[in-house]
Formats: sequence, structure tokens, C-alpha cells
Amino acid sequence: MFREKIKVLDCTIRDGGLMNNHNFDMRFVREVYKALSEAGIDYMEVGYKNSQRLFSSKEYGKWKFCNDQDIREMIQGIESATKISVMVDVDRVDVDDVLPKQDSPVDMIRVATYVKDVDKAIYLVNHFADKGYETAVNIMAISRALDNELTECLQQLEKECKARIINIVDSFGSLYQETTEFLIKKAKSILKTKEIGMHAHNNQQLAFANTIEAIIHDANYVDTTIFGLGRAAGNCPTELILGFLKNPKYDIRPILDVISKEFIPLQKKIEWGYFIPYAITGILDEHPRTAIALRESDRKENYREFYESLVGEVEE
Amino acid sequence: MFREKIKVLDCTIRDGGLMNNHNFDMRFVREVYKALSEAGIDYMEVGYKNSQRLFSSKEYGKWKFCNDQDIREMIQGIESATKISVMVDVDRVDVDDVLPKQDSPVDMIRVATYVKDVDKAIYLVNHFADKGYETAVNIMAISRALDNELTECLQQLEKECKARIINIVDSFGSLYQETTEFLIKKAKSILKTKEIGMHAHNNQQLAFANTIEAIIHDANYVDTTIFGLGRAAGNCPTELILGFLKNPKYDIRPILDVISKEFIPLQKKIEWGYFIPYAITGILDEHPRTAIALRESDRKENYREFYESLVGEVEE
Repeated sequence: MFREKIKVLDCTIRDGGLMNNHNFDMRFVREVYKALSEAGIDYMEVGYKNSQRLFSSKEYGKWKFCNDQDIREMIQGIESATKISVMVDVDRVDVDDVLPKQDSPVDMIRVATYVKDVDKAIYLVNHFADKGYETAVNIMAISRALDNELTECLQQLEKECKARIINIVDSFGSLYQETTEFLIKKAKSILKTKEIGMHAHNNQQLAFANTIEAIIHDANYVDTTIFGLGRAAGNCPTELILGFLKNPKYDIRPILDVISKEFIPLQKKIEWGYFIPYAITGILDEHPRTAIALRESDRKENYREFYESLVGEVEE
Repeated sequence: MFREKIKVLDCTIRDGGLMNNHNFDMRFVREVYKALSEAGIDYMEVGYKNSQRLFSSKEYGKWKFCNDQDIREMIQGIESATKISVMVDVDRVDVDDVLPKQDSPVDMIRVATYVKDVDKAIYLVNHFADKGYETAVNIMAISRALDNELTECLQQLEKECKARIINIVDSFGSLYQETTEFLIKKAKSILKTKEIGMHAHNNQQLAFANTIEAIIHDANYVDTTIFGLGRAAGNCPTELILGFLKNPKYDIRPILDVISKEFIPLQKKIEWGYFIPYAITGILDEHPRTAIALRESDRKENYREFYESLVGEVEE
């Protein structure tokens, strides 16, 4: 029953890091790595490879920079077949920070880009591919992309870019299944030589559903996070995708353990999941930053006021 | 863009009542009725019409019995076009408790049944239809129904039953979109003269997605609950379906208000929503009763142990 080609990339530490300035301590990250390894997860994404000249290491934790020595410390002594991924943002990386693959514990570099920045993304991907890494592109904010520009972007990726995997990113958690189907089919029709992946957000409780929808239409790479940890409403839960995929190589039990031991206590420190302000930004196809700000204010349960502040800004 | 035929039935008080023995106080229920009325919701289901000879009114609140005088008190003085629904379980109702429609504030009676009890359900439905009520059948535990028995059940409903609406009930929250599609198409193919509805549970965060899937395949009745309140993981959230449906008659703002004022405080008293034990029973297509018991015990976060207790019971 299972489709062997489907690979799971767990980005708990990377996407979850957006909620705590990438300040997970080494013990916690090693527990996650151990659980993912025992569960048979294919990739673990640990953070961003940002330039330390652009961001302060006083303000941000180590997973904002993903130095090779920190990754080595994370994996040391843990038996694993799980590959390591890091994310790179256009205009925030110093390519000289990235050593040739044979000198690094990193296996995959994923470049996150908006449609408009695809030329820069292709340059970066090809640079990293030439250094020996597996590469992927994550097309962010896809719900806002104009169809003609997305077409051109996908055509360029097919022709000019060495990335093996192109991921559709529902940054605002605004996609319904029909649009997910449309986007995955569109990507498949243009990206003849590449694999398609899905990165979903859970603002409208549709992250898992949209991930299944992408799989139905032949996406073979899926991004997930343990217990759905991730920015704002979070992501497609790793535990649910393991229940859905029938591949016997996966084992849900180490994920259940690490949720019990690490993620239940973490809920007292970081807030993520289904909250009405995140649902509202999802429904309205807006970035969740206003909702995150609301949740940190003393008006965090004033939902009608928040809704009206967003729909009241009529644009012409 | 909207499909006018789609009707929303909010069963917050009925399904939510399964978590507190139907003990919502009158003030709370009136606030919900007011919000649903202002939001333009088509139906509100307030509880079960159970026989007071079978259940003790000391043990259960008034929404286990739904006496007409309680419903009259609930609606008094509130302007509303929202119709009132009550649910009846096979073998738990005294049909003589149900007055002719013209003497009752109830508009619709829905009979909940397993496939095996469909004959009893048809008898009840036809009795209530003859008394003048709108009627519906909710086919529970549909994920466990054998295909040939479901076919026969649907054929009987089409031929012998006066119910206008037949609802597919994913009691265990175990359906994925493909099976929802299969079941809705199957029901549509047999129930030529009836409307199809969907009642989803959220164990795997798929209640909203499965409801959308049912709508895509021409179900016109959807069950929802405010903030997803309902047994265990709860149901398809009313606020999300209002964001999805584009019918201008609906207004999400009264729902946002009542969540802020009533449901956020309620979360401190009743636990519902996405919890790992409910996800596990959903993945395994099991009734959530074991998970509910676990959540009430001192081992409520021992997920691996719980999972193994369920998968360890190998049946031959």
C-alpha cells in the first residue's frame, strides 16, 4: 500500500525556531534528533544558515546560524540514517560560510524564496549543488503568487536550477484542498525532471489535509514537525503523517515518546497551534505576524476587534 | 462563488454535551443560540431527546432530555431564523415524549443509528415525520461499516425512510479525504431523492478537511461546532466553515465574540481538541473512549504505553 518514494523531512527545530529565536538548547535538539532517527525519518532540518555578520548571536540562538561544529555536537554518538538539512534565505547567507560537502555534516541545503527572488535562489542553489550538497527550493507565500509569474518561476527552476526538489509553501495557512491540488498539478506539469514537495501551515487545521492532498497528486516530499510545532499555528504533525503513510520503515513510537517527555513541557514555554487569530489570518490569506503580535499583547482574546482591524483596511 | 443549498447545522451543545453530561447552564446555551442566530447559522442542535425513564436527571443535565419547556426558555426573547434540532438515539427515546410539531419549538429530529439498527431508525424517523418534523438520519461509525451492509442500509433509507437528509458520521475521526470522497459518492449514487450531510471528528485534524471534501462531492449539509467543541478531539469548527463558505448570509463575527467570551473560559473546565491519545484512536480507527479514560487518569501523557495497549490486542 505504501509509496516508497515518499520522504519525510521533519523541520521541527527549524520552523519551531521561528517561535523562540532559534534558542533550543543542545539537549533538547539531540532528543529530537534521536527520536527522528529511531522513527526512520528521512531528513531533519535544524535551522537557518544565516550570516553572523547580518544577525547577532546575542539575539539569536545557534540554530539561526547552524555552524558545522554545532551540528557535529548534535549528532555525536547517536546512531542514525537521518540526513541533515539546513535552510538558507535569499540575501541572508554568506556563501563562503558553506564548506564543500565533504567537509560538512550537512547533507541538504534548501533555499527559501519568494517567486520574485527566484533568480537569486537559482544562483544560490547551483552554488551549493556545485559544492556537493543535495539541494531544494522552497517557494514561499505561494498563495499570493500571480499565475503568470509562478509559471515563469517554475519554468526557470526546471531549466536553470540544479535543485532536485521544489517545495510548495503555504506560508499563510490559507490554502484549501482544491487550490493545493491545482498548485501541485501545475508544478508537476512544468517540473518534469524534479520532485515536488509540500510545506503546509496549520492556521485553518488543514496542514495535514493539504499534505495528504499533495501526496494524492504525486508530491513525494513532505515537511512535518513533531506535535505540529512551528511558527504560529504550526505545521503538519509528524505523528499524523506517520499514521497515514504505511511504509513499515517508519515507527511512530519514538515520536510519541519525545512528545510526552519534551513537547508537553515545552507547551508551557512556547505557544503554538490552533488559536483564533491564526485562523483569521489564514482565512484572510495574511501573514500571521499581526496575530503573533496580538497573542503577545493583553488583547489576545479580542478576536472580533482583531478581525475587523484586518478586514477594515480596504485597499483599492 | 457560493452554493446556496449548503446548510450549516451547529451541534456545539449536543456534541459538546457528551463531555459534561449535557450540563450546560441556560445562560451559556442562550449565548450560543444568540451567536448562532446573529451569524445566520441554519440549524442549532441542542441535545438528545432521551427518555427520563432510562436516564436519571440527577446524573445528566437538561440537554440530555430536551424538554420543550427548556427549549422555549432558551429561545425566549432572542430574534432568530435558526431552526432547532434535537437528536434521538435508537432504543433510548420514548416516542410519546415527542409532541406533534405544531405543539413543539423543535423543527428537526435527527435519528442517530449504526448500520445494523437502520430498521429501528427508519421506524422512528417515519413516526417523527408523520408528526410533522423535518427529519434526518446520522449513520454513525461509518468507518467500520462493511460495504455490502452499507449498500443495503442506504438502499433501505432511499426506499423506506421519510428523512430528507442522510448524514455520514466519522465517529472515530479516522477517515482520510479519499475515503470521505468514496463514501459521499456512494451515498449520492444510492440516495437519489435525499440530501447528504457530513459529521466529522477532529482526532487527526481532518474534521474541517473532510467536511470540505464532502462539500466538493455535493454534500449540502454540514455539522459544525463552535471552536470545535465536541467529544474528545471535537468537530469541524463553525468559524472555519464560515470562512470557507462564501454565502454572504453568514457573519463570522458573532461566533468570534462568543468564543472570546464563553469558550476561552470554558477551556479551563472541559478538555477538548487535539491531544495525542485522540490522534492515536483516530489513526487506529477506534472509539475514543479509551483515550478519554486515559486523559482522566494520572497517566494521561503516557502515549507510547497507550499506543501499545491498543496495538497489542491482536485479534484473529
